[in-house]
Formats: sequence, C-alpha cells, structure tokens
Amino acid sequence: MKKEITGHTVLTALLGSPVSHSISPQMHNESFRMLGLDYVYLAFDISLDHLKTTIETLKHMQARGCNLTMPHKNLVCEYVDHLSPAAKLSHSVNTVVNDNGILTGHTTDGIGYMKAVEDAGHSIIGKKMTLLGAGGASSSVLVQAALDGVKEIDVFNRRGENFNKAQKLIDRLNQETGCHVSLYDLEDEKQLSDSIQESAILTNGTSVGMHPNEDGCLIKNLDVFRNDLIVSDLIYNPRETKLMRLAKERGSQTFNGLYMLLYQGAAAFELWTGHPMPVDHIKKRYFSE
Amino acid sequence: MKKEITGHTVLTALLGSPVSHSISPQMHNESFRMLGLDYVYLAFDISLDHLKTTIETLKHMQARGCNLTMPHKNLVCEYVDHLSPAAKLSHSVNTVVNDNGILTGHTTDGIGYMKAVEDAGHSIIGKKMTLLGAGGASSSVLVQAALDGVKEIDVFNRRGENFNKAQKLIDRLNQETGCHVSLYDLEDEKQLSDSIQESAILTNGTSVGMHPNEDGCLIKNLDVFRNDLIVSDLIYNPRETKLMRLAKERGSQTFNGLYMLLYQGAAAFELWTGHPMPVDHIKKRYFSE
Repeated sequence: MKKEITGHTVLTALLGSPVSHSISPQMHNESFRMLGLDYVYLAFDISLDHLKTTIETLKHMQARGCNLTMPHKNLVCEYVDHLSPAAKLSHSVNTVVNDNGILTGHTTDGIGYMKAVEDAGHSIIGKKMTLLGAGGASSSVLVQAALDGVKEIDVFNRRGENFNKAQKLIDRLNQETGCHVSLYDLEDEKQLSDSIQESAILTNGTSVGMHPNEDGCLIKNLDVFRNDLIVSDLIYNPRETKLMRLAKERGSQTFNGLYMLLYQGAAAFELWTGHPMPVDHIKKRYFSE
Repeated sequence: MKKEITGHTVLTALLGSPVSHSISPQMHNESFRMLGLDYVYLAFDISLDHLKTTIETLKHMQARGCNLTMPHKNLVCEYVDHLSPAAKLSHSVNTVVNDNGILTGHTTDGIGYMKAVEDAGHSIIGKKMTLLGAGGASSSVLVQAALDGVKEIDVFNRRGENFNKAQKLIDRLNQETGCHVSLYDLEDEKQLSDSIQESAILTNGTSVGMHPNEDGCLIKNLDVFRNDLIVSDLIYNPRETKLMRLAKERGSQTFNGLYMLLYQGAAAFELWTGHPMPVDHIKKRYFSE
C-alpha cells in the first residue's frame, strides 16, 4: 500500500476458513508498499454459506479481487462471470479479478508450482511426471503442467468418488492438450514404481505427511529414489516432509511447497496490479527458512 | 494499524456515496498505528441498494464495525440489532459496532458537536440554543444537546414534509428529556431574532452556505450578532462560512464543523477499540487549517 491509507485505497482479500495464519497478507501488503500501489490485502474467515454474498459484496465495494483458499476454491466457480482456461479445466479458482464489476476466476496454484520447479533449477517441459493425488491442489498442478508442455503425467489416486472425477479431467486433458495423462490406483505399487522409474519428477499433491501427521509417506519402495529424480512436495509444513527426507537421503533433489505459495501469490498480484511482485524481496523477508 | 497487516488484522469501514474524499481513513488508520491496534479502516462507495448485504457481509467478515455517511444514516437503522438511545431518537446511525455478530447502531455526530463546543471553550449546559435546520445532522445535534442538558432549544426549519417529522422528534424530546424544545418556521424572522436574543449559541445545521454555494446565509437581521453570542456552523467547507464571517465582524465568537468531524470519529474509535483516539496528534496532522 502507499504510505497512508486514504478513501481511495482499494481492497484485495483472502477468503477461506481458517485464514488468520496465512502469510498472504504480509506478502501482498509488503509488495504494495514497495511498489507504492494503493491497495490493502486483508484476510476474512468466511464460511461456505456466506461465500456468494461475500463475493457479491466485494464487487460492490469495488475490491480489485480476492484470493480463495480452502474450502472455497470449487464453489466460487459458480459466482464469477468468466473462468480462465486452467480454472475451467480444474474447476478451481484461487484468484478472482474484478474488472469494473465483471469477475474472472483464475487458478494460479499450478502456475505457482511450475514457477517453483523452475526456481529450484529444473526443467520438466517435454519430460514425464508422476503425481500423487487428484484433489484440489493436485488438479491445479496437473492442469498447468499439461498446458505448459510436460509430455506425460501418471496420476495416482485412491479409488473412490474423486477417482471418477479425476478420470473426467484427465480425459479432457488428453483431448485438449498435447500431454498424455494416465490415472492409476494408488494401491498399485508395481505401477507406481514403474511410473517413477520413467519420470523426471515425483510430486506429492496429497496431504499425507502434513503437520500434525508428519509420519505419513506414500512411497514404500525406497529404491525409486534415484540421483536424477526430482522429488517435490506441495506441503510446506513441515518444511521437509518424510517423503523429502527419505528421497534426499538416497540422493534425489527435493523441494517443498513454499515457493509454490510465493509464486501463486505473485501471479495473483500481477493479475490485480499489472506489476510483477518483487519476489526476491518477499522471499528474503517471509520465505527464508 | 500495527506496523504490518497480517491475517489477524480487523477491518473497520466507512460506507457512503461519495466517500473517496473523506478524511476518516487517515484519521482512524493513523490512530490505530499510533496506539499499535491491529485494525484497518477503508472507505467503500456503496449505493443504498447494496447497503443491507454490505452490512451483513461486514458482519460475516468479522469487521469490528463501520461508519455510515450520506445517504445511509437512516436506512441502516433497519439493519442493526440494537440502537443506542440517541440513535433511536434521531433515527440516525453513523457508527455500527459488531460484538461477535450482534450489531448496535450509535450516532456520534451529536456527541462530536457537543465535544466541539467544549473544545472551543464554551459551556452551553443549562443554557438556550437556536438551531437552524432539522435534517440529519441537525437532528443528531438536537438530540445530543437535549440529552446532555441544554435547557431550551428553538429549532427553525422550512415548512414541508420534514417539518412534521421534526415535530414528532421534538415531542419525544419534550417527553423524554429535561430539555424544552420548540419548532418554528424558518420564515418567521421575528421569532428567529427573539430566539437568538435569548440564546447562548446559534447553530447552523443546514447546508446553506456550503461550498459551492458559499454566498448563502440564513440570518438576514445582522443585529442578532452580539458579543456574547456563540455562532457555530456544522459546515467545514469553506472553513469560514458567510454566517461565521458576518457574526465574527459583529463581535460574536465562531467555530466551524471541523472538530465535530474529528470528535464524532473519536467517539466511534473509542466504541470500536475501547481506547481514546489520540486527538491532539490527529488535530495537528489532519485538522490544522
């Protein structure tokens, strides 16, 4: 924000539940301040029941937009006027942009992940990925990876309602992108090992291993961790998951979900303001271990 | 606000139309900053159509409260759970306090005016007042003056719809307070001169004389301006109205509506935070001529 908040200062917001722990307010407000932009970013703990009226009211308040986190990413799709291609495919929105009363839903989670891969010094374009999970966060990564030119993605998920939903998304990705995507049962350990064997990167998009259940790890066969395998986790609490620790011990290169968080925010910031977020500064200030 | 806005920072707001010119965001945010309170105050240009959903959404957002300005002060009475005695009498709310989902409407305009009288070095308790106008701002002054112990108030208003509404309010004040209030036709120049003659203070609560119609002045008989008469205007643009200039030239003591604005804000600030606003600092920073 500018040095002083005035009657002209424009609101941006995070909607979710819970949200008070989020680092997004610091990340965005510090970026507004650095660039002298007249915005403020606040977090609001909103239940699903009140999402619709909140989205409408933020529009009437001439808020520039909002971020959505759990549990709102899917439902908000119903309340915007347009969806970006990635948001439409993943049926998930984490960023709404308000252009004078016209709301467009974007998903920058996948963009954030692909930027984080790059930031970690890797290139996975034209290569194969093994992706664990097909929920909200995983779907965003899956869609963006397919759109960006990852050549082949093997997705592993437990059988259940979500499995069929994932199959539909994957069918569309196979039709609409150049990426070859396959869905497998997470119980199929033989296939999982084979897929990882052929992959440049293994990505955990499930919550297994997240605080407070830090003992969880979906990979049982530790022989899959090679020197030239990248192992990444969307989790950032703990900073090093059990998956990352085991992979690192066997020589794989690892990174967590922290910079995905940074870069999804940077992409939202740019959609709202038209300016790149000063990510180097924000990294040092809020994302140093 | 505190040095950094986080996910815990609480919203307070100004709702009205127009609002972007308002000095209230500066006044409140600087006070939050000085006292290290974790709030932000933003102004939102909201139409009457959207007032109800905005009030409800601010409640769901756990905003601590809001200020209301034109045109919302009357309508908002319908959307709160409780009204303060002065808000009930004047059917006007400029401050809503949200106590965990229970909304109470207050009017601090009259409180602000009475504080401004005191600030200018005067005491009008137990004395007589002549009040020009019976609209929103005037009613708030009227009610608070009657509640605070002004002995007698002669109100002058043009005949019309508002006249009868004013009579009803005045009937209630005569029943419910120790103040003796009378309503007269603003055209009755003889009565006006007689009333001012008996009064310690003459207060203009109409918009006559306000920018851009600075030539307006409701007092024609300039002999009413005595040495020991206080002449005050709720207008603060221009800083000196024609009424004030003419009165000053004839020896009366005058003050404008600027500190009423300050003190209505200070009263709202204290209702929300439980802390007195650092008014001396705010005066110097935003209210010095």
